[in-house]
Amino acid sequence: MRLYDSLISGNGYKIRLLLSMLGRACDRIEVDILRGESRTPDFLALNPDGRIPLLVLDDGRALAESNAILYYLANGTPYFPSDKFTQASVVQWMCFEQYSHEPYIAVARFWREHLDMTPEREAALAEKTIQGNKALDVMEGHLDDRDWFAGDALSIADMALYAYTHVADEGGFNLAPYPAIRGWLGRIASAPGYCPITQS
Amino acid sequence: MRLYDSLISGNGYKIRLLLSMLGRACDRIEVDILRGESRTPDFLALNPDGRIPLLVLDDGRALAESNAILYYLANGTPYFPSDKFTQASVVQWMCFEQYSHEPYIAVARFWREHLDMTPEREAALAEKTIQGNKALDVMEGHLDDRDWFAGDALSIADMALYAYTHVADEGGFNLAPYPAIRGWLGRIASAPGYCPITQS
Repeated sequence: MRLYDSLISGNGYKIRLLLSMLGRACDRIEVDILRGESRTPDFLALNPDGRIPLLVLDDGRALAESNAILYYLANGTPYFPSDKFTQASVVQWMCFEQYSHEPYIAVARFWREHLDMTPEREAALAEKTIQGNKALDVMEGHLDDRDWFAGDALSIADMALYAYTHVADEGGFNLAPYPAIRGWLGRIASAPGYCPITQS
Repeated sequence: MRLYDSLISGNGYKIRLLLSMLGRACDRIEVDILRGESRTPDFLALNPDGRIPLLVLDDGRALAESNAILYYLANGTPYFPSDKFTQASVVQWMCFEQYSHEPYIAVARFWREHLDMTPEREAALAEKTIQGNKALDVMEGHLDDRDWFAGDALSIADMALYAYTHVADEGGFNLAPYPAIRGWLGRIASAPGYCPITQS
């Protein structure tokens, strides 16, 4: 099993975090996305969508999309629930992460950390800040009387949302007004097998 | 079981299409999203993210996110595969739909059909056209030697992608250069239980 990954990617970190919590090894191949290594003909033959993370099984079958890789690796482990409704809740929060959270909080971080802040990006950042805070508001409300996003245990829904939330400050977001989120971040950081985003 | 839905929403249509193919009835409540009915205090109490479709079970539990609702309703039916890798492929294509397809192809359609085309939207539409065509390119390549998106049978991955692809022309997209996509659209439209997007 090989994971095509990038240390600057929170989407890649989701997989590293789950593998670490599962105590499971995986060959990791660093892809320099800033130099276009995920858009080479060789990489596009593996993933025509040109994105990391990408998991390639020993038989050569490939799986793209961070949350689908989480789903594949967690299915049958304690990080994916057995109850049908709670399973769907996990999928719900992973969809929320990809649609209402990542395009704002992760992209704002990527722009600020890795790209030139052109006037166009500066203007677009204001809208990303508004939408990212809306996502944080929804998360804060949900965690108000719960420890975890789906059901009553740590699941891949939490890992998917943790990846970019815990570094939201790098995208210019302030988590001070979100005590429930900060408590939840702390619970994940102290869970067995936790690894930081910088760890390969 | 109640479905909060809007007839102008392809995300809502995904659920109507699956229910129709399953031959399963569901109370449907039309929500006028253009008049803000998904942002009222009553609706936000059901879904704090303020979006339709929303499925509310008879016991009151609510499920948001169109693809999570598909997952919940299809799990255990022929529209969700039993093989673990193929299950993850379904999730992969649903993630692709939400991240790389819907924000361009669906949003372009929504703007053109329902909102005023301001100069800002007109400018942003050019980028949406580029990104939407990239998504169509990936789909076309995948369908080049396959009938369905995940495994060898019609699944909720196909329904998720069908919803906005088959009305992509309303967002200004031209499907003429995509013969594999057009063939696949035809296979879905002739599948048992099919219903059109206009059918409540």
